[in-house]
Amino acid sequence: MKKLRISLAQINPVVGDLVGNVKKIISYIKKAKKIKSELIAFPELAITGYPPEDLLLNPQFIKDNIKALHKVKKASKGINVIVGFVDCKDALFNAAALISNGRIIDVYHKKHLPNYGVFDEHRYFKAGRRCPVYNLGDMTFGVNICEDIWYKTGPARIQALSGADIIININASPYHMGKASFRENMVSTRVSDNGVVIAYVNMVGGQDELVFDGGSFVIDGEGRAVVKARQFKEELIPFDLEIQNIRKSKNKKSRGIKPKIPKWKKAEKVKIPYSAVRGEKPGIKMKKAVRISEIEEVYNALLTGTRDYVLKNRFKGVVIGMSGGIDSALVTAIAVDALGKENVHGLWMPSPYSSDESCQDAGATAGNLGIELKTISIDNIFKTYLKTLITEFRGTKKGITEENLQARIRGNILMAFSNKFSWLVLATGNKSEMSVGYATLYGDMAGGFAVIKDVPKTMVYELCHWRNESAGRQIIPERVITKEPSAELKPGQKDSDTLPAYPILDPILKAYIEQDAGFKEIKKMGCKPECVQKVIKMVDYSEYKRRQSPPGIKITARAFGKDRRFPMTNRYKSY
Amino acid sequence: MKKLRISLAQINPVVGDLVGNVKKIISYIKKAKKIKSELIAFPELAITGYPPEDLLLNPQFIKDNIKALHKVKKASKGINVIVGFVDCKDALFNAAALISNGRIIDVYHKKHLPNYGVFDEHRYFKAGRRCPVYNLGDMTFGVNICEDIWYKTGPARIQALSGADIIININASPYHMGKASFRENMVSTRVSDNGVVIAYVNMVGGQDELVFDGGSFVIDGEGRAVVKARQFKEELIPFDLEIQNIRKSKNKKSRGIKPKIPKWKKAEKVKIPYSAVRGEKPGIKMKKAVRISEIEEVYNALLTGTRDYVLKNRFKGVVIGMSGGIDSALVTAIAVDALGKENVHGLWMPSPYSSDESCQDAGATAGNLGIELKTISIDNIFKTYLKTLITEFRGTKKGITEENLQARIRGNILMAFSNKFSWLVLATGNKSEMSVGYATLYGDMAGGFAVIKDVPKTMVYELCHWRNESAGRQIIPERVITKEPSAELKPGQKDSDTLPAYPILDPILKAYIEQDAGFKEIKKMGCKPECVQKVIKMVDYSEYKRRQSPPGIKITARAFGKDRRFPMTNRYKSY
Repeated sequence: MKKLRISLAQINPVVGDLVGNVKKIISYIKKAKKIKSELIAFPELAITGYPPEDLLLNPQFIKDNIKALHKVKKASKGINVIVGFVDCKDALFNAAALISNGRIIDVYHKKHLPNYGVFDEHRYFKAGRRCPVYNLGDMTFGVNICEDIWYKTGPARIQALSGADIIININASPYHMGKASFRENMVSTRVSDNGVVIAYVNMVGGQDELVFDGGSFVIDGEGRAVVKARQFKEELIPFDLEIQNIRKSKNKKSRGIKPKIPKWKKAEKVKIPYSAVRGEKPGIKMKKAVRISEIEEVYNALLTGTRDYVLKNRFKGVVIGMSGGIDSALVTAIAVDALGKENVHGLWMPSPYSSDESCQDAGATAGNLGIELKTISIDNIFKTYLKTLITEFRGTKKGITEENLQARIRGNILMAFSNKFSWLVLATGNKSEMSVGYATLYGDMAGGFAVIKDVPKTMVYELCHWRNESAGRQIIPERVITKEPSAELKPGQKDSDTLPAYPILDPILKAYIEQDAGFKEIKKMGCKPECVQKVIKMVDYSEYKRRQSPPGIKITARAFGKDRRFPMTNRYKSY
Repeated sequence: MKKLRISLAQINPVVGDLVGNVKKIISYIKKAKKIKSELIAFPELAITGYPPEDLLLNPQFIKDNIKALHKVKKASKGINVIVGFVDCKDALFNAAALISNGRIIDVYHKKHLPNYGVFDEHRYFKAGRRCPVYNLGDMTFGVNICEDIWYKTGPARIQALSGADIIININASPYHMGKASFRENMVSTRVSDNGVVIAYVNMVGGQDELVFDGGSFVIDGEGRAVVKARQFKEELIPFDLEIQNIRKSKNKKSRGIKPKIPKWKKAEKVKIPYSAVRGEKPGIKMKKAVRISEIEEVYNALLTGTRDYVLKNRFKGVVIGMSGGIDSALVTAIAVDALGKENVHGLWMPSPYSSDESCQDAGATAGNLGIELKTISIDNIFKTYLKTLITEFRGTKKGITEENLQARIRGNILMAFSNKFSWLVLATGNKSEMSVGYATLYGDMAGGFAVIKDVPKTMVYELCHWRNESAGRQIIPERVITKEPSAELKPGQKDSDTLPAYPILDPILKAYIEQDAGFKEIKKMGCKPECVQKVIKMVDYSEYKRRQSPPGIKITARAFGKDRRFPMTNRYKSY
């Protein structure tokens, strides 16, 4: 019985940082050699970072990415390496290089290119056609990339029929709620489809609106997850493959399935020189992280996305307008967890409509988190605006204009602190507000990064509860959680004056935005027709605001931004 | 010799306005019947408007679009109609219905789906496979859609070999500079490839960032444009097809070409009942619009895009911050031409750094255009901000923070007028500024629509010259054109303090942004390396600003927005 040691490198590359990414890849190769791995696998497009978007249209970028691959090749003496890069032949390919002992043995081209949701891969890549398998000592393996594994009749089928014992699937699979267990279940199905072991290596870290959650894993021939990496952390995940065990389980499995494929799809076999593989090694402990709860997962995604946007863009700190409300309290807590309290700066910007409670609540939140909270009253500035505009606005009714003025003064002050001290402004709007446009463009929507833009209000509450529980003390003060939400832009204002209660609003928004339900279907959920109509109208109408909103972290099945591409000029009415 | 009358309907649908679009389509069918056309052809996705984007993911929208098609069907007694809609079978198809005398005879599915630039068609549609031809009396014709005609071996080839006399190609082809003549030349090549007449019908009008310029045309068997519609105008374009003439010219042409296609691609023929076609009719005058100059074309595109964004979104008017500079002067002129002077409102918002010349120039521009110009000094507001922030900013140097404050006060005032009077704010930044980030987010970048966002500064000058010449008098005052550009946010400030001169900057930007040139290639154009490096750095760095900029009209080969999808977090350096 022969043991083969494979390491999955769950790394966090930076888009475009070819030099830095190669350095990181090489450092992981060294780690893998140290523990005597025969093979190390890196994520999809590990060399360029994912998604490189239109950088891919620049020929110099493509050339530089090939040069970067050759640096990895040189560092691959005495080991086999699978690494994602952009291959350039008659077209570009989302590719995996198989490097053995300093030589590129073969290049696999991704076959199934996702072009939905946040993905635009048909914009850049041509689909691959070959599905080879490789022999490494006693083991036969196939390599494929991300989306490839989602298809029942995809490359894994062909590779299994060509004798693969194990499929190594390299990924840059962005996070959304519940996706981790969905991936494991799907890969487990693919294992039983094909009677192979599948090792799934994912990227980790934040890139603009996306978070890659890692959580790499190995599913054995029985469909069990025998290795599980943690989510949201960089790590090297080694495991030992016992060849005879695979064979046995394959034979057992294959009794049940008789897959057919057309003859012309027969996979090629490529022989890897055995010289790269060395003798028997001592055993290692196989990692088996426990999956965290959905709400902890979301919190970690927000933390990772915030940390990486701030740090990868080299900001010195962040500044947050703290209103005493729950949204800014949650964003502050996430920022402190992501960046440390000394890098988070709070501004309390009261107007005549700000309540004493809000002042106390903002102060208590800052105090609990140990950050400084500056007070800048917007009173005089607001009065001066009103005075300046008095002639032009004479005879008009006070209303939304005057409310927005206050929000925009605060936006301007936050941006002044950003300009002065190089702090990134974190916007604090949640998905419910963003959906119905209950937010002021350039006002509370101002900021470089909108941390909870994709978090529905009802989940904001859950996250605060979770954060308090996990700390074992009140981080977010009780009253911040229990009081009625208000924008405090006029006397006695409440969110509920304008919007349905959040527990009613959020399911409508989910159905309409994430599930493509029309008016008729949502009505069937038991909602009042006039309420559904109002919500749909508000969502459609406020598309122009969202188009100018800061980027934020995707945590649901469909976020705003690249994930939902909606016309602003749009007269469709489903009601 | 049999004459057949065909009408091309160059119409301006509104995205999502199924009811309005059907109404328009039926009114054009009536017009075509009145002049005894046998066949009328509408643009690609005429029923839904183009591009419907993620509306297409809503099943109710798809159903409603099919219902709308059936309304068109019912209105098609006594005529043949080709109309673009979304077909729904096992997947969605970008489709053309062929309706004859109130019956749907066949549906063509677009074969080549563009997925580059502003296009995302693989996101929504499956590619078609059939390339049928139809017999209408003596005429055999094929229908295909937009991108299909750009491929030498596309459907037109198959349809021609199946005996088509004429190909009717329906389009929603967005404008960029020089595209109209490019299209004519390309279609002329396709005519000589295949020995057929090609009728090209395009959409017209603005939709968010896109303008469809119309300019429909017919290329005869000799490669001559025998019919040319105007650009940027809705119109019905009838022409008479003389069957024997086509046949003769086809025979002549076909001596030169012997195209080969694999047998399995053989097209089907569908017979249309002849009942829909009536007897001989009096001749019509074939339209042959003269193509306008490139700069007039750009001006008209900007006018059309502005008019349609404002009117399709039902705004009551627009408000523009007029600085006395050339950018706001040009935007105001375009707005007045698009919407009428009574719907355009100017604001002159002086600060202590505004010059007397600027005041006079803003006034003179407003006077020449006949619009009101209100004065709102930002002086007191600016002072109050500085006073409010004095403690926190003590000991820091005056600089970009104080400049941005002024720009953002103006942004806030413009938005207050927008909120109060339901005027859309037109932002006035040009492409050169937008590229290098020489603009204040939420300040001069504030607005609902950025008219000249894709117009390089050097072209802003050309457009002003053209507008003055075409008026035969000074619309944009001479001094506005000749004085040195300045943001006037600090004493003696000039754009040239920060940026290379625009005639040097603009070609670098064009190479980098529109032509995917890297540092090395741009250097070869004869630019100073340190200048190129500085410009590339500025462009890359300011991606975060552009991500929050208002939408604007695409007029170049590559605009910002959906046309150029760039990561914000990006460490790639090509220098």
